[in-house]
Amino acid sequence: MAETNQAKKWYEKAGESPDVTASTRVRLARNLRREPFPARANAAQKEKVVQEVRGALLNGNSVLSREFRFLQLEELTNEAAASLVERHIVSPGFIADRQGKAVLVSEDESIAIMINEEDHVRIQVLREGMALKEAAETADRIDTLLGENLDFAFDQEFGYLTQCPTNLGTGMRASVMLHLPALTESGGMARMGANLSKLGLTLRGAFGEGTRAVGDLYQLSNQITLGLSENQAIENLSAIAGQLMNEERRLRQEMGGSLAWQDKITRAAGTLKSARLLSGGEAAELLSLVRLGIAQGLLADVDLGTMNALSVKVQPATLMTSAGRKLSEGERDQLRAKLLREALEPLRMGE
Amino acid sequence: MAETNQAKKWYEKAGESPDVTASTRVRLARNLRREPFPARANAAQKEKVVQEVRGALLNGNSVLSREFRFLQLEELTNEAAASLVERHIVSPGFIADRQGKAVLVSEDESIAIMINEEDHVRIQVLREGMALKEAAETADRIDTLLGENLDFAFDQEFGYLTQCPTNLGTGMRASVMLHLPALTESGGMARMGANLSKLGLTLRGAFGEGTRAVGDLYQLSNQITLGLSENQAIENLSAIAGQLMNEERRLRQEMGGSLAWQDKITRAAGTLKSARLLSGGEAAELLSLVRLGIAQGLLADVDLGTMNALSVKVQPATLMTSAGRKLSEGERDQLRAKLLREALEPLRMGE
Repeated sequence: MAETNQAKKWYEKAGESPDVTASTRVRLARNLRREPFPARANAAQKEKVVQEVRGALLNGNSVLSREFRFLQLEELTNEAAASLVERHIVSPGFIADRQGKAVLVSEDESIAIMINEEDHVRIQVLREGMALKEAAETADRIDTLLGENLDFAFDQEFGYLTQCPTNLGTGMRASVMLHLPALTESGGMARMGANLSKLGLTLRGAFGEGTRAVGDLYQLSNQITLGLSENQAIENLSAIAGQLMNEERRLRQEMGGSLAWQDKITRAAGTLKSARLLSGGEAAELLSLVRLGIAQGLLADVDLGTMNALSVKVQPATLMTSAGRKLSEGERDQLRAKLLREALEPLRMGE
Repeated sequence: MAETNQAKKWYEKAGESPDVTASTRVRLARNLRREPFPARANAAQKEKVVQEVRGALLNGNSVLSREFRFLQLEELTNEAAASLVERHIVSPGFIADRQGKAVLVSEDESIAIMINEEDHVRIQVLREGMALKEAAETADRIDTLLGENLDFAFDQEFGYLTQCPTNLGTGMRASVMLHLPALTESGGMARMGANLSKLGLTLRGAFGEGTRAVGDLYQLSNQITLGLSENQAIENLSAIAGQLMNEERRLRQEMGGSLAWQDKITRAAGTLKSARLLSGGEAAELLSLVRLGIAQGLLADVDLGTMNALSVKVQPATLMTSAGRKLSEGERDQLRAKLLREALEPLRMGE
C-alpha cells in the first residue's frame, strides 16, 4: 500500500476561525485489560495488541473502517516515518524506536490510531481551525467503535487506566494550535502562560525552544484528566481559547494601521515569492507573517488552507518524501524555496 | 520657467557597458580674465560674471544654446536646490551658500554650466554608461562656444588658471561611475584604490563613508591636470576603467553560478517589490543588487536605464520635489517604497 495518496488532507483546509487558529487536536489514551503496557511487553505481546486493535477497527461495523490505512512502523523508511511526525499523524517519540509499533490512518489523515505508543491505543483526531467539539465527538465515535471489540482497562474510581498517571481518568488531551503574532509582539505571552497553568491549562510554543515561538504558533491544552468530564474539559478549553483569540484579534486591529507592521508582512511575502534558498526556521517565520497578512486582508489570492498545507509541506522529511529521495540541507533549502515561490506566486497585495 | 520639465533625462538611459558602469562625467574649470575669483568677489562682481556667461551661451551662434534653462540659485526652494545635487547637476558645495550663483542646464540635464562655483565657470557634461570620449568632446564644444564671447584666463606655461592649483592646466576632471559589487564582495577594493593612486587616478565610494560603498558604486577619476593633455588623461582613465570593468565581469561570471548569490539578488528584488517603507540607504543597496541581477540576466523586464533613473528619483530632495511639498523621513520612506514598488512591478525572474 502506498504510504501517501492524493486525497485532500485535513490540513489543506482552513476551518473555523482560521485567522487565529491553525488546528485542533483531541487524543484519547486507552489500554487493553490483561496485556502489559507497551514498555513492558515483548515482541509477541506487542504484535498481539497490534493485530487485536487492527482487527477491532477494520472488522468493525462502521463505514469509518473502510477508509483506514494500516502502517507497520518498521516497514517505513526513515524519511517516511519522520514525515508522519511532521504531518502530526504520530508523536516524535513514536518513531524513535519503531519496533512493534503500528498506526491506522484515515484517508484524509485527520484520524490516527497509534498502537503501542506509551499506551496500547492512542486515538488522535486532528481538525483544521477551531473544532474542539467536533474533534472530541469523532474521537468518541472511534473509541466506541473500538470498544465494541476490545476490552479497555477501566476502573470505577480512576476511570481509564493509562501508563502515565497524568492521563488517568478521561485519558483525554485536547489542544488548539493558536496563531498569536500580535499577542507575541505585544510581549504578553509569558504572563499569559503563568495565569493559564492556574486554570489547569498549558500554553506553550508549538515549535522551537527559544524566546519566541517559531511562527508564533502556540498549543493551548488541558492538563486535568481526573475529576472532570471530557465535556467539561473541552468547554474550559474552548472558553479560554476564545478569550485568547479575541485578545489576539483586538491587538491585530490596533497594529493593523501601523505601516511598520504592514511593511513587515508585505516584505515577508516578497521574500517568500523571491528567495532561492530558505531554511525551515525562516520559512516558518515568514509563513506566519503571510498567514497574518491574509487573515488581515493585507494580502490576497492565497487562502489560509493553502498556508496550513504549506507549513506541513516544507518540513524536512516531508520535502524528502515528496522528492522521493534523501536531500542535503542545502538541497532542502533550495526545494523549500522553490515550492514556496511557486505556491505563493498568486499571492498579491490586498486592497 | 519651471524648475523641471518632462523631457527624458540623460540618467533615464543606459548607455555603453551599462552592466558595469552607471555614468560618465567630465568637467572643465574656467575663469574670466580680469574678474576676481568668486570667493573674493562682491555681489555686483558676481552678478556681472553671471550675466556675461549667460549671455555668452544664450547669444552664441549654436543650436545648443536654445535648449538651456537658466536657474538663479537664490530663487529656488531648499528642496529644489538639493534635488539639483541629487540629480548630479551641481556640486553639494554649490548650494551651501547660494548667493550670487546660477546654473545653466540643458533640457536633458546632461550639460550644466555652474556660474560662481569655486571657479567662475564649471562646464559639466554627464552621460549614461561609459562615454568618456563623447563627454569630453561635448565639454570641449561648450568650452569653444563660451570662449567665442568670453576671455578665459590662460597662461602659456600653466594652461587654464583656476582658483585651486590642483586644477591648473587642463582644468579637466573626468570620472566614470562604476558598479562593482563583485569586486567589492571579493574584498579587493582597498588594494585596488592604493594601486590606482600611483597612476594618478582616484577610486572612491560614490556615496557613504563606511567600510562598504553604498550601492557598490565607485567613482574613478583623474587627478593630474598639468603636463598631460585632455586626450591623454581621458585615454589613461579609459584604459584603467576598462581593466576594472573586465575584472568585475570576470568575478561576476564566477559568482553567477552561486545559489547564495542568486538568492541575495532575487530577495533584493522581492523586497523592493513588496516593502511599504524603505530608507535611502537600504534602497541603494537593494537597487545595486537588482541592477546586477538585470545585468546578469537573472532578472528581466526592467532595463538598466530605468534602474539609473530610479537611483536618482528616490533621493530625499528629489522625492520632495516630485511630491511638491516637504516630507518627513517617515513619509519619504513610504513614498520611496511606493515609487519603487510601482516602477519594479514588471520585474520578474529571468530564464
